[in-house]
Amino acid sequence: MNTFGNFFRITSFGESHGTALGVIIDGCPPQIELSESDIQHDLDRRAPGQSTMTTPRKESDTCQILSGVFKGKTTGTPITIVVYNENQKSADYEHIKDIFRPSHADFSYEKKYGIRDYRGGGRASARETVARVMAGAVAKKILQKYIGTEIYGFTRGIGTEIFSAVDKNFIEKNPLRMADPSHATEQEKRIEQLKKEGDSIGGVVEIRAENVAIGLGSPVFGKLEALLAAAVMSVPGTKAFEIGEGFGLCTKIGSDANDPWQCEEKKFHTVRNANGGILGGISTGEHIWFRVGIKATSSIGKSQKTADKQGIETDVQISGRHDPILLPRAVPVLEAMTALVLVDQWMWHQAQCGN
Amino acid sequence: MNTFGNFFRITSFGESHGTALGVIIDGCPPQIELSESDIQHDLDRRAPGQSTMTTPRKESDTCQILSGVFKGKTTGTPITIVVYNENQKSADYEHIKDIFRPSHADFSYEKKYGIRDYRGGGRASARETVARVMAGAVAKKILQKYIGTEIYGFTRGIGTEIFSAVDKNFIEKNPLRMADPSHATEQEKRIEQLKKEGDSIGGVVEIRAENVAIGLGSPVFGKLEALLAAAVMSVPGTKAFEIGEGFGLCTKIGSDANDPWQCEEKKFHTVRNANGGILGGISTGEHIWFRVGIKATSSIGKSQKTADKQGIETDVQISGRHDPILLPRAVPVLEAMTALVLVDQWMWHQAQCGN
Amino acid sequence: MNTFGNFFRITSFGESHGTALGVIIDGCPPQIELSESDIQHDLDRRAPGQSTMTTPRKESDTCQILSGVFKGKTTGTPITIVVYNENQKSADYEHIKDIFRPSHADFSYEKKYGIRDYRGGGRASARETVARVMAGAVAKKILQKYIGTEIYGFTRGIGTEIFSAVDKNFIEKNPLRMADPSHATEQEKRIEQLKKEGDSIGGVVEIRAENVAIGLGSPVFGKLEALLAAAVMSVPGTKAFEIGEGFGLCTKIGSDANDPWQCEEKKFHTVRNANGGILGGISTGEHIWFRVGIKATSSIGKSQKTADKQGIETDVQISGRHDPILLPRAVPVLEAMTALVLVDQWMWHQAQCGN
Amino acid sequence: MNTFGNFFRITSFGESHGTALGVIIDGCPPQIELSESDIQHDLDRRAPGQSTMTTPRKESDTCQILSGVFKGKTTGTPITIVVYNENQKSADYEHIKDIFRPSHADFSYEKKYGIRDYRGGGRASARETVARVMAGAVAKKILQKYIGTEIYGFTRGIGTEIFSAVDKNFIEKNPLRMADPSHATEQEKRIEQLKKEGDSIGGVVEIRAENVAIGLGSPVFGKLEALLAAAVMSVPGTKAFEIGEGFGLCTKIGSDANDPWQCEEKKFHTVRNANGGILGGISTGEHIWFRVGIKATSSIGKSQKTADKQGIETDVQISGRHDPILLPRAVPVLEAMTALVLVDQWMWHQAQCGN
Repeated sequence: MNTFGNFFRITSFGESHGTALGVIIDGCPPQIELSESDIQHDLDRRAPGQSTMTTPRKESDTCQILSGVFKGKTTGTPITIVVYNENQKSADYEHIKDIFRPSHADFSYEKKYGIRDYRGGGRASARETVARVMAGAVAKKILQKYIGTEIYGFTRGIGTEIFSAVDKNFIEKNPLRMADPSHATEQEKRIEQLKKEGDSIGGVVEIRAENVAIGLGSPVFGKLEALLAAAVMSVPGTKAFEIGEGFGLCTKIGSDANDPWQCEEKKFHTVRNANGGILGGISTGEHIWFRVGIKATSSIGKSQKTADKQGIETDVQISGRHDPILLPRAVPVLEAMTALVLVDQWMWHQAQCGN
Repeated sequence: MNTFGNFFRITSFGESHGTALGVIIDGCPPQIELSESDIQHDLDRRAPGQSTMTTPRKESDTCQILSGVFKGKTTGTPITIVVYNENQKSADYEHIKDIFRPSHADFSYEKKYGIRDYRGGGRASARETVARVMAGAVAKKILQKYIGTEIYGFTRGIGTEIFSAVDKNFIEKNPLRMADPSHATEQEKRIEQLKKEGDSIGGVVEIRAENVAIGLGSPVFGKLEALLAAAVMSVPGTKAFEIGEGFGLCTKIGSDANDPWQCEEKKFHTVRNANGGILGGISTGEHIWFRVGIKATSSIGKSQKTADKQGIETDVQISGRHDPILLPRAVPVLEAMTALVLVDQWMWHQAQCGN
Repeated sequence: MNTFGNFFRITSFGESHGTALGVIIDGCPPQIELSESDIQHDLDRRAPGQSTMTTPRKESDTCQILSGVFKGKTTGTPITIVVYNENQKSADYEHIKDIFRPSHADFSYEKKYGIRDYRGGGRASARETVARVMAGAVAKKILQKYIGTEIYGFTRGIGTEIFSAVDKNFIEKNPLRMADPSHATEQEKRIEQLKKEGDSIGGVVEIRAENVAIGLGSPVFGKLEALLAAAVMSVPGTKAFEIGEGFGLCTKIGSDANDPWQCEEKKFHTVRNANGGILGGISTGEHIWFRVGIKATSSIGKSQKTADKQGIETDVQISGRHDPILLPRAVPVLEAMTALVLVDQWMWHQAQCGN
Repeated sequence: MNTFGNFFRITSFGESHGTALGVIIDGCPPQIELSESDIQHDLDRRAPGQSTMTTPRKESDTCQILSGVFKGKTTGTPITIVVYNENQKSADYEHIKDIFRPSHADFSYEKKYGIRDYRGGGRASARETVARVMAGAVAKKILQKYIGTEIYGFTRGIGTEIFSAVDKNFIEKNPLRMADPSHATEQEKRIEQLKKEGDSIGGVVEIRAENVAIGLGSPVFGKLEALLAAAVMSVPGTKAFEIGEGFGLCTKIGSDANDPWQCEEKKFHTVRNANGGILGGISTGEHIWFRVGIKATSSIGKSQKTADKQGIETDVQISGRHDPILLPRAVPVLEAMTALVLVDQWMWHQAQCGN
């Protein structure tokens, strides 16, 4: 459904070209200072038109808090935050309304519901992630305030290339949100070239959470990596998830894969943090880190063959200019999803083990 | 928590060496023929001692239905299925009760709860998957009855090797549950050698679901791949998940990655099924397929260095003989989790779109 | 929390004097014709200023659909409906911000959250029921379309008087929503007198649902009367609930209380429908009927003694003119809650038993 | 469904004459001392055969903990508690399997599921409350430990009579669990007479919770009285619920109904506690009190007319000897449900407002 989380529970609503997109946060702790400006920063990081690397569609994406905040503080009641859509024209999409675009949600929505809002992808549009980023901004603020947790992400790989250096301070200084300064310029050129050709490319985003509370997540179905995987794989365009060393860890023999505990200055840690800060589904207090595979934007400028509703082969060329790469704008979305999971689990931990 | 699913909702309970392990299925449709023998088959596929590839611990793992079935049929009320543990001795585990074993859940449970059942891993033990397999057997039966869906899995890779051939009929005929007959013997030898050395190895399992209903899953947070990822990543030892072509798809440029629709004999399908039978989070009716990275068994016979509760470095050697490879026994568990997701989403689809 | 229902799931948000009040409906079946005019009717029935019997506060309470409807039909995605508040001034409430008004939520909100929006009751205001009525209008439409269920309510008693006659057609023709024409005029006079005195009064509302599907509700915790009781007792001002003959039934001996089954023209029914259309927690297909005790409006014009935050005794006189009786405006709210329960349970019944 | 609570979440299973009845408690805080003897006390208070006032069916109802407790303490993992049924014979019920008994669940189960376990009421049997009492015993222990809350109930009325005196210490000393010593003997005689006649009677139970935490419950749908109403109305035989002065409060005019705040020795309280310890849906810290209408046992010895499955009128006489009055055995069940609500809401309060 459209609700995520059990304690810090968000409900997302809205379509790409409907009246408004928004989110309700239910269960937020009271007395937290909150205003639109706390949210707008991450919203701008997600917004289109930040650079030539992203779609030039210009929407101001200005958020408004409709409820749950009184005199600048949360009251413990539902916080509703909306962004009104400026573009609601459907005319731009009439020509594709009977076509099943390759690797889009057109076919499955049509068959499931018997009706779909075909304007800009409707509910399937990545524009829905506006809701997640807004809620995530509140979650980040809570984690920062109560635990000191910091969450950030970056473009770890593009196409078949994986970049090895991680300069945290460089990430927000380049349009691709890469963390490896030595490859940024070359990759920007590559993406601009793809864009000219009406093409796109996928890659790998890495997310890290530092200063995480010990004890988040729970045994069996509520394992923290399971919650993170669900969070991540619910973001449009994601195709793969690996926690810590992930698939690489699975190629090893046990005596190499195992990661022994050490204790230095009364602080426990493992040698490699190979399991990404989680063991037995529960956070160890070490940094959480995971990687996410994101495919190339499905909306490309090149003409493609596909089938229409009648099953007849047809050519489709998608008008409008889209992102040649989803990754930089996906970073704040994945950060938001991570924050939502962590704050939700922190609240649960307080409830069960806090006394 | 310990509940999975919203409509076909299962709750798992029990520890490795407690009195009993079991599962409650709430929401099961009525009037389905069900007896212990329907469940025992998959339970035997998961059981230890099937071959030299698996741990020789001998438990009969015989299931018993305690409620919800009357005169051989489900009644629509909760179905409780248990397996009583034969081995509840704690003496075998006293020597490790103060040690944080490498890559086990010891540390995180200890810190979260301040108490843990250290006998055989307690609640963190892979033995808990008995509950999932029992519930999954019921889910499979429902999917088979109402939709004709068939779910199977196999060992796709071991260590760094990925096997290419898929002979569905071979899977249950070899102890490693490989689908590639040409590599099975060599791999068995390899695993037996590792076992002799007191070591273990990881790999990749592939799961497939054939004859899937169209329309399962939902937009945004309930995307089918997100639900499957959560299901899979909740299984002990899993470190990575990829749907369809997964990470491989993410290396491609859009014009190569996109997978056009075709219609043949009034049936729609995509050229490659690159997205694993799901688009926009909703099943397309094509086969669902995904891969799961499973790490080497953490419990190895070799002596390892690690820290104890006091933070003092110590050597640990895990007594008892464990699986040198988790994959063959993980296959029925991953099948079960897949079935649970599909039946749950099918019920939701009936509720929302069934009229 | 602020979510109600499991399948047809609504989330309510907003404060009395905040920017907007609204509701998200998640899980609504697709392809149902829906526009603001379908919702506005019940919203007007709930609105203040309908007569001298209700508070004269004039808000137009015009609803707007923000998402989930495309070309006049539901799409299966979240339907968001809002009403923007016209009056957001807080100055009117400064004088009571430090006073715990008698029988209001002031004290408990203050102690729970350490902060509260004191403007017009904030989240505790009965104005929140706008959200319920809007969602209920959609639920009613679904019940009407698929099952033919009709839900209506009326003022069964005022003060110590219970009115015996039930003329369904009279209800919407009198400002008190009484069903007994012979007592309506006398009661209107009585209420107007109370109003002049700055006082208020309580009473009993009766709700009926006709043409109910058989099989709604479930054993144990999901009993239909339990769900209805929770729905009803969540409405501001409600103090008591009884299903069918209720407390009266409990005064009887078993041989009088029992209500035998009869079958006429192949239709089963009980002699008295004493249990209100529900047996064992599951609907029998007979009319559902229950009664709800609603207390006198706590906001009265008379001066009252109470304590302020410091614990000092103080006089409080509540400015603004309030309803002398809550019942007529509570009727559409209780109808809405009933519709929400029934449609939710109908969807669950389809999921579990629909194949 | 069969799950109750969100944080302290219990799942009930089992039929009256199945193999076992039981409950899983998920979310229980760790490190609480717990053994079967903590549970057995309330189980015995619920058990049949305590006196001539209750059914003589003799089952030992001995509970067994299957999981979640290690070395005498809870571990934070699911606690499973079962009672094995000693009587599983179905022969005793063959003669009523095609009859819809008056005021029983036979008809609605039959129509909903198309199948029902007719042995002793199956899942509809009041015997299911064994599960609730066991879970409630754990909840009571937690409330006692962390807050000092004490919950007790008693028979407030029988038939049309309401008893005014409340001697807390007398309750467990008389088989009817009355709190008014001056009427106990006369009522015992009355019930014994009814029993001889093969008849039964209903009445009113009152539940009180003393030393309640402030801030339990939440605005809108999670109002504490709504949660209590749902809890109470899910117990077999309940027909009505009123919080505090209930229906009586609703007969009053506002200036009489309102209950002003006072502050004595820095402690806030209201003059009458008319609203039963809850305002705006949130506990005030005053005693919570409510009343529950419970109907006469439907199973009576007298011959009754009713219809069978074919719709043919038939006489039914229910063999086996049943309780002439449900109230005394319902008391521990209603206490348990109250404890479950309070501990669940206390955990939620810790999660949201505990920092």
